[in-house]
Amino acid sequence: MNAIPEVSERLVHVPLGERAYDILIGPGLIARAGTEITARLRGRRAAVITDENVGPLYLAALTDSLEAAGIAVASLVLPAGEKTKSFEPLMAVCDAVLEARVERNDMVIALGGGVIGDLAGFAAGIVRRGVRFVQVPTSLLSQVDSSVGGKTGINTRQGKNLVGVFHQADLVLADSDVLNTLSEREFRAGYAEVAKYGLIDKPDFFAWLEANWRDVFAGGPSRIEAIAASCQAKSDVVVADEHENGARALLNLGHTFGHALEAATNYDSSRLVHGEGVSIGMVLAHRFSARLNLASPDDAVRVEAHLKAVGLPTRMSDIPGALPPAEMLMKAIGQDKKVKSGKLTFILTHGVGQSFVADDVPSSEVLSFLKENHPQ
Amino acid sequence: MNAIPEVSERLVHVPLGERAYDILIGPGLIARAGTEITARLRGRRAAVITDENVGPLYLAALTDSLEAAGIAVASLVLPAGEKTKSFEPLMAVCDAVLEARVERNDMVIALGGGVIGDLAGFAAGIVRRGVRFVQVPTSLLSQVDSSVGGKTGINTRQGKNLVGVFHQADLVLADSDVLNTLSEREFRAGYAEVAKYGLIDKPDFFAWLEANWRDVFAGGPSRIEAIAASCQAKSDVVVADEHENGARALLNLGHTFGHALEAATNYDSSRLVHGEGVSIGMVLAHRFSARLNLASPDDAVRVEAHLKAVGLPTRMSDIPGALPPAEMLMKAIGQDKKVKSGKLTFILTHGVGQSFVADDVPSSEVLSFLKENHPQ
Repeated sequence: MNAIPEVSERLVHVPLGERAYDILIGPGLIARAGTEITARLRGRRAAVITDENVGPLYLAALTDSLEAAGIAVASLVLPAGEKTKSFEPLMAVCDAVLEARVERNDMVIALGGGVIGDLAGFAAGIVRRGVRFVQVPTSLLSQVDSSVGGKTGINTRQGKNLVGVFHQADLVLADSDVLNTLSEREFRAGYAEVAKYGLIDKPDFFAWLEANWRDVFAGGPSRIEAIAASCQAKSDVVVADEHENGARALLNLGHTFGHALEAATNYDSSRLVHGEGVSIGMVLAHRFSARLNLASPDDAVRVEAHLKAVGLPTRMSDIPGALPPAEMLMKAIGQDKKVKSGKLTFILTHGVGQSFVADDVPSSEVLSFLKENHPQ
Repeated sequence: MNAIPEVSERLVHVPLGERAYDILIGPGLIARAGTEITARLRGRRAAVITDENVGPLYLAALTDSLEAAGIAVASLVLPAGEKTKSFEPLMAVCDAVLEARVERNDMVIALGGGVIGDLAGFAAGIVRRGVRFVQVPTSLLSQVDSSVGGKTGINTRQGKNLVGVFHQADLVLADSDVLNTLSEREFRAGYAEVAKYGLIDKPDFFAWLEANWRDVFAGGPSRIEAIAASCQAKSDVVVADEHENGARALLNLGHTFGHALEAATNYDSSRLVHGEGVSIGMVLAHRFSARLNLASPDDAVRVEAHLKAVGLPTRMSDIPGALPPAEMLMKAIGQDKKVKSGKLTFILTHGVGQSFVADDVPSSEVLSFLKENHPQ
């Protein structure tokens, strides 16, 4: 990972048999979407789903590109934000897709971040029991995480992502130009997931990020390289375990704590966004592993130092406002869908790049740890 | 098929690899549900979904059986009827399943006919991206058709079954005792799908039905035999083409016309129920095939004679009340999800038990045929 090839575009192939697909990463892909799609897919009708933040920036360019390639386009612009990942907008998307007469070989296109991707992908998975799906992710988070791997879904009052399907995309177009319009905070939040791939099982990639993160943030050649390496890392895990029966759980490194903190802040993005929760969660996972004598405390220090350097929060005390007591955080962890028959499953680590699935973590240990780390 | 074995229970295994499952057919299965389930599945929580017609008859017995076997039961009773196959009830089912803390290895149990099976199966397919699913079908139609093969879904304003997933059951318990409480009309409607399996590719089974239908209707040993033969026939087709890319379309024999007639009568069950639409549709498919010189007119006469003998409607003129004009019926056929890129796909036949998929039927021929057969 030390030599950075001077590439302007990268392709990551996800080899899932009859569900295999390509991820293209590079500049100008929205303007080229029509030709990239028609080169790979037969359908000539598309329903584009986007939100009120992204639509004004890129919907016209995407529509022009599709229509120039002979694809008939209908579009639906939804409110931006996590609340859009729920049943009512799902019904609206299904209705729009059916009204557009999208048939099985036609496509739903998600133009937006993780919320739009998860929602539109779910609709693509259930309309006519599955139509084609193209992702045009517009945040760093969705480019490196949610647009790869086929998980789709919505939230319910019981928790996040509790209703959904596995429905792989048929093509992902990750246009690196769009990242220039992200806020610094949003870019950093996505970067937490980039760092996660190093922490799971790629210590060299983590060391490379420690050396090159400034170029990734500045939009230098390392950016496309980091995105491609992340997509490749996620693809490797997904191919090994498409339906999350085992190793795929590693992708949840930092997420069990992170989800609990997101719930504890009522998904209020002014206080905490997903990637920030993951950042704090990953530091907690490393410190918890050290507390259980599974890893050296030095690793937790190193992980925290890097995430802090890029400007991410790393402690529960970094979250503005009061948090509910540790017992309430435990309850949120208990409703997490990775619980099997009441036992707690956690992703723990033996050190940087040495994560593993722990199936039988005593909840008493977790509670003590949360109490020690609780800022109030 | 001429010798009827004196069996009190039959088992049909559906060999779908890691999604393989058993269908048990026989008396007393609801009372034995708990032991049959715990012998096969690990989960010990169940959300039972039923409706206001079936619940009062069987929910208590099913719940007792499950609880006696150590399964914790929550239940949801929905209004009976086709309107329940829509988004709002789907949300209610997902909510009930999540509130019951059903995890991936726990189960949703459908206790009812096709509407409940399709709805509960859809919820089982999307809650936590898929939990276990047990079908306890209580109508002949659902025992021989909708509970086998993994199709789930709901209706939208655009049409029937336009939103759903493929989600195979983990076990089907077809209790033959419950059929004794069906109305004659409801039993006959289910019988249309039984006859369909003979007409698709089992001429011997159709001949056996011509000879033995009175015993099937009377609840003699032929009944379980006919149900098992139907489940086996459907299983054979599903195993050959689980996701309906080809041969599975044969199961739609009679359904393209039938669905159009159901739409034309606004799904008003006082005028036409699904099996009656299929009965008329199958006769139309045979007569249309004869008109195209694909089959002998004698076959259409034979098919109509048998369906008439059991008391099923066979002509559009058998439907009470006025029908919309032929052009409107064509429009309903055009919205059917079996249309690919505008071409009409029909199941046609070369004779009894010799059906085939015709991909390129000219809509002008269909329209002329509908006009000739229109009663007004």
